[in-house]
Amino acid sequence: MLNFTYYNPTQLVFGKDTIKTIGNHVSSFGVKKVLFLYGKGSIFKNGVYDTAIASLKEHNIDFVEVSGVKPNPVLSKVHEAIKIVKDNNLEGIVAVGGGSVVDSAKAIAAGAFYDGDVWDFFEGKAQITKALPIFPILTISATGSEMNAGGVITNEAEGKKWGFGSLLLFPKVSILDPSVQATLPTIQTVNGAVDGLSHVFEAYFGGTSNTDMEDELSEGIIRTIIKHTRILIEDPSNYDSRSELAWSATLALNGINGVGRRGDWSSHGIEHGVSVFNDIAHGSGLAIVMPAWMKYVHSTWPEKFERFAEKIFGITEGTREEKGLKAIESLRAFYKEIGAPITLKEVGVEKKDLDFIADTVAKQGVLGSLKTLEREDVYKILEIAFE
Amino acid sequence: MLNFTYYNPTQLVFGKDTIKTIGNHVSSFGVKKVLFLYGKGSIFKNGVYDTAIASLKEHNIDFVEVSGVKPNPVLSKVHEAIKIVKDNNLEGIVAVGGGSVVDSAKAIAAGAFYDGDVWDFFEGKAQITKALPIFPILTISATGSEMNAGGVITNEAEGKKWGFGSLLLFPKVSILDPSVQATLPTIQTVNGAVDGLSHVFEAYFGGTSNTDMEDELSEGIIRTIIKHTRILIEDPSNYDSRSELAWSATLALNGINGVGRRGDWSSHGIEHGVSVFNDIAHGSGLAIVMPAWMKYVHSTWPEKFERFAEKIFGITEGTREEKGLKAIESLRAFYKEIGAPITLKEVGVEKKDLDFIADTVAKQGVLGSLKTLEREDVYKILEIAFE
Repeated sequence: MLNFTYYNPTQLVFGKDTIKTIGNHVSSFGVKKVLFLYGKGSIFKNGVYDTAIASLKEHNIDFVEVSGVKPNPVLSKVHEAIKIVKDNNLEGIVAVGGGSVVDSAKAIAAGAFYDGDVWDFFEGKAQITKALPIFPILTISATGSEMNAGGVITNEAEGKKWGFGSLLLFPKVSILDPSVQATLPTIQTVNGAVDGLSHVFEAYFGGTSNTDMEDELSEGIIRTIIKHTRILIEDPSNYDSRSELAWSATLALNGINGVGRRGDWSSHGIEHGVSVFNDIAHGSGLAIVMPAWMKYVHSTWPEKFERFAEKIFGITEGTREEKGLKAIESLRAFYKEIGAPITLKEVGVEKKDLDFIADTVAKQGVLGSLKTLEREDVYKILEIAFE
Repeated sequence: MLNFTYYNPTQLVFGKDTIKTIGNHVSSFGVKKVLFLYGKGSIFKNGVYDTAIASLKEHNIDFVEVSGVKPNPVLSKVHEAIKIVKDNNLEGIVAVGGGSVVDSAKAIAAGAFYDGDVWDFFEGKAQITKALPIFPILTISATGSEMNAGGVITNEAEGKKWGFGSLLLFPKVSILDPSVQATLPTIQTVNGAVDGLSHVFEAYFGGTSNTDMEDELSEGIIRTIIKHTRILIEDPSNYDSRSELAWSATLALNGINGVGRRGDWSSHGIEHGVSVFNDIAHGSGLAIVMPAWMKYVHSTWPEKFERFAEKIFGITEGTREEKGLKAIESLRAFYKEIGAPITLKEVGVEKKDLDFIADTVAKQGVLGSLKTLEREDVYKILEIAFE
């Protein structure tokens, strides 16, 4: 097991009827005036807006609203919100939505105390030294951003979808009421499930340093997500399954599943190139890219792919190599079954676009841990993912 | 899944050669003068004392030493240390040892700011409102106290081994270098393993509210502990297995394994009565008591004990009831195999003592969640545990 430091001070408030506690939590941090950040109108339909606003008012917390955060959140919106935060001397951020809203909140929280362009943090030109406290109310389980210290923002002008992070960006309190996810469109549930699974895979297949405890945890998360996604497609308002999927997705990227071994993260890097190109949902991009990456790299660590085959899909027949390949096909079949795209072609990418995508990915530098990927490797993976 | 709040701000620094960072961590909290608390001489033999002291000195941190914390830590030692902390205006506690030292540190940390008897916190007569920062250096993996906010202390005068806790008692930074456990006597490794397993069982069998994700996590911890305890008995200095056991034991009681369902904790309550009586190690007591508790309660939740049989011991033959009973016997056989005691008789308890133990246990009130236990139930469980 590799040395590690585990630290995650976010308080996660999980369960039914918890959103109404937001005012109390914000108040307990001495915050009196917040940015109220969200995406589109779904929080009006599911009642989250009304519940949260009522709670803020009850605790005499002023707020300024900014809406319109997009699924692949963009830098221009972050800039807009930072200006509003500064102009109004806001003291915290209540971020209502999925990962895009929480990631945006993190960039805004850091940008609020910085005179330059917040993108400097992404480029490594500046270090985050102070940030506003963040209070997410999660309405889509997917990214795990509600309980970690990182995020991903798209710089539209420069064609970069890049990550950033700082220990200062852990949300103070995250509220996660799985019941509000009952009315999500199926594809969003599916994208969230794929995102959660992909986070586990990045850690699980990250390198040849192994740990039993982490493998057990990873496999438990994977089995739980697969089981309960299937149930939710038939029965979207099943509260227990919503809870299982939500908690699994949080565990997938709150750090507990990543310790003691390296992560790989090249599939995320490649997906970022794909969704910069055609703005598909992150989960859809991962459903396409990650099995293709697995096909490209599995022979680097056949023992691990064999274990994956046995523990997740119960595959016991065949050679080690055959089991690994069967498992990758089983994963693709599962993605297809639940309605996720599995080829670039079906989301509108053309063969000629692969060069552009590979170039975009290459801007991030060399990717990967299990297998180091140069631009030509990325291109080959995109070819596998194409159809 | 039941509603829950997960919060654990302890920074866990895990791995080889991490003890030398203690001074830096203490210093980063602005602490300049600490209580240096430990048990017996083992920290001189394994080099931990020298490494820690050198690091404190390097960072100009003054310290006052208190040693002699016993395996079942006692209130009188806590009182002694609180007086020293107050007399010397100490600002923090470096606690070097296992759970007994860390638990004592928590009581001392709370008592340092309280004018009355610290035992008031155990009796619920007062609330902890302030505590010194605690910095454990863990040398025995067992209790999980290095990453949680609770502890257990024995009040010798009143014959009570009771728990206490407060969110203020999470250690700030815990350092866990598994390599220093290579020289532990086998029985201490075994006791630690049993303690870790027992913490998982308390959550796993706690009540009829189930969660797949938590069951998966529990089963992963159980399998990892069983596997690596066996390896360590043959090969005590196997670093990977030391790491697996250490990390599993931390996960067993850092809260992540307990969410979304009730815990039972009656076996712990019963064990406290046993070890108040004859001062055996907590892990030994649990190895005796917990399977007896399982035998007494398994018919309350046969489905769960069947799952336990299948997932942990691969038992697939027989009726549900038979599988559950076979699993309990398999657990006892495992405890016997690794050298843990499995009857009260073999640790010197006589039949006539069971009444006294049951009386001691009953002082804690009614126990249990899966099945509520009165004094007469406790007596019956002690009878099962006797031989």
